[in-house]
Amino acid sequence: MTKNIAQTDTVRLSDDGNSIEIIDQTKLPGRIHVKSLSRQEDIWHAINILEVRGAPAIGVTAALSMYLAAKNISADQKTNGNPDHMKKERFFTRLEAAKNYLNSSRPTAVNLSWATNRMEKFAIRFFEQNFETDNLTTILKTVDAMKGEALTVWQEDIDTCRAIGEHSLSLVKEGAGLLTHCNAGKLATVRYGTATSVMYLGQEKGYDFKIYCDETRPLLQGARLTAFELASAGLDVTLLCDNMSASLMKTGKIDAVFVGCDRVAANGDTANKIGTSLLALSAKRYGVPFYVCAPTSTIDLNCKTGSDIVIEERSGDEVTNMWFERRIAPENIKVYNPSFDVTDSDLITAIITEKGIINNPSINGVNI
Amino acid sequence: MTKNIAQTDTVRLSDDGNSIEIIDQTKLPGRIHVKSLSRQEDIWHAINILEVRGAPAIGVTAALSMYLAAKNISADQKTNGNPDHMKKERFFTRLEAAKNYLNSSRPTAVNLSWATNRMEKFAIRFFEQNFETDNLTTILKTVDAMKGEALTVWQEDIDTCRAIGEHSLSLVKEGAGLLTHCNAGKLATVRYGTATSVMYLGQEKGYDFKIYCDETRPLLQGARLTAFELASAGLDVTLLCDNMSASLMKTGKIDAVFVGCDRVAANGDTANKIGTSLLALSAKRYGVPFYVCAPTSTIDLNCKTGSDIVIEERSGDEVTNMWFERRIAPENIKVYNPSFDVTDSDLITAIITEKGIINNPSINGVNI
Repeated sequence: MTKNIAQTDTVRLSDDGNSIEIIDQTKLPGRIHVKSLSRQEDIWHAINILEVRGAPAIGVTAALSMYLAAKNISADQKTNGNPDHMKKERFFTRLEAAKNYLNSSRPTAVNLSWATNRMEKFAIRFFEQNFETDNLTTILKTVDAMKGEALTVWQEDIDTCRAIGEHSLSLVKEGAGLLTHCNAGKLATVRYGTATSVMYLGQEKGYDFKIYCDETRPLLQGARLTAFELASAGLDVTLLCDNMSASLMKTGKIDAVFVGCDRVAANGDTANKIGTSLLALSAKRYGVPFYVCAPTSTIDLNCKTGSDIVIEERSGDEVTNMWFERRIAPENIKVYNPSFDVTDSDLITAIITEKGIINNPSINGVNI
Repeated sequence: MTKNIAQTDTVRLSDDGNSIEIIDQTKLPGRIHVKSLSRQEDIWHAINILEVRGAPAIGVTAALSMYLAAKNISADQKTNGNPDHMKKERFFTRLEAAKNYLNSSRPTAVNLSWATNRMEKFAIRFFEQNFETDNLTTILKTVDAMKGEALTVWQEDIDTCRAIGEHSLSLVKEGAGLLTHCNAGKLATVRYGTATSVMYLGQEKGYDFKIYCDETRPLLQGARLTAFELASAGLDVTLLCDNMSASLMKTGKIDAVFVGCDRVAANGDTANKIGTSLLALSAKRYGVPFYVCAPTSTIDLNCKTGSDIVIEERSGDEVTNMWFERRIAPENIKVYNPSFDVTDSDLITAIITEKGIINNPSINGVNI
């Protein structure tokens, strides 16, 4: 099924409530293929091979998946012959197994276990507080409530992104040149993205932004995902290599930079995709405001400064050969390949959350 | 013929003086294949398809090629039956044709026509000033002198690069971490390169440098050429993506940056491969000295500032698909792809020429 990206959520519950529909990101850039997932094995596989990716989108998928798992378990219980007093324990044992199975699809994705835990805890609490006549009846009621909770997780993501976009939009003018890095886009969330939300909301208002995307080596998310999703939605987008941002800013074409964020430390330092801090240096030099779009869930007050954030180093193959027709570097060459870098807070003009804008975080801190 | 890069010049006249031997750069990274070129058509082709590349190496190849052309013309003239009074005109007409043919192999390469013009002018002047008995005798003497002149062009390149390396070496300590961008390496010159000369001379002295190379998108010269030539020569080299330099400098592992240069303006602004200016911004932030290695031939006092330098914009295909197994960006996406950028002189710690070091060019200017 091929659809228009502007009218397609990255993740959603199907209209009949029996499956999860995702934009299959392994088919990008190219066509927008919506894939329908109903079996737990299929959902596990989709997360595992990055058909769905991006922390928020993974979290939403996991929440919806826990609802589908609960529904299937309860359907089994309606038809099997177990006595009612055994059903509660069996339901929650099987739900926990479903949770552990889902969590194993991408063990490092924090949002995945956050979402499955939230759904499990919700189910346990709901069951306890709403017991009615017998276990099976209460299980069926619980499953129904879990659908509501999963849709709440989904809606919260949309609302958070939209709020970040609205705050961001107050900082830029019609016709502005906007630069972004990596994919903090709709494809990483349900609908608007974080850094791209300002672009989609601007489009709704008829603003004529000129958008520029860093290709974002080594994994090229900017070229493959961000340039793709923005262009598919009909926005005016230009791709550049990561080393061209200073040259571009010098021309005066960039009025603001919007990037996403993986973690914000208490002093306002932010960790994001490798290359972000270099972009911030360039923005500082050329007087371009540098905005970090950060849901409040990424603010970690237990982390004092950016130097407390551990940066993952990944395989050198990503740099030397994984995308190329032939190897572009000598065999056995050493490679430096950190996934993220830390942008010092003095380089950040503002951090934009769903709750509001934190100006000059290096002076004001990030309490919100 | 496969050779050790440390013992192989990028370009040289063969021992018998009948051909030019080049390291075929289309075979890199991989094996060091030395190709022997004797016919003008083969030399034209080698320059045209970048088997030999880099402004200095192209200039040297062109100078040697003018000598081979002159030798072939004179050999014809020894054996053909033209009367002697016609030989001078025919010699220089055919030499000019050879020059124009060579120049057409890569019309934008300034060093190419610089070298062929130098050789032609040398031949004309030598003939006039050294006439002896008859035209044929003088032509044969002229061809002999042209061999000396071509070898002078070749030797000057070696001496210039070596002198730049010696000056550079006075600025760094044993064991230093050195970062470079693109390929201002031996593969762009005869023997030492400009930015890499410090590394090779350091190796001769047993210094244990830790060298880091930007891959240099979009054409990946850093990965394909610089990382390759340094590793082949036995140096300790680590490859990184262009967007990782700030992260790397923050670790304190980089003690100095050495880059090449295409043009130096009178105020010390320098044009070099795209990404250089971003690297300079990062060096400034982290207190790392930023050195531009520039033969005095690249200093253009007629060019007042960097903004007078016209930057070539190249095809977007270089960014979106030329190296990749499949297209990495949507069809019809706009691409910003400048080949070079200008590094403002206040970001440059020193410009290093073969004649000496220009400290703080933004204060001192570039007169040398």
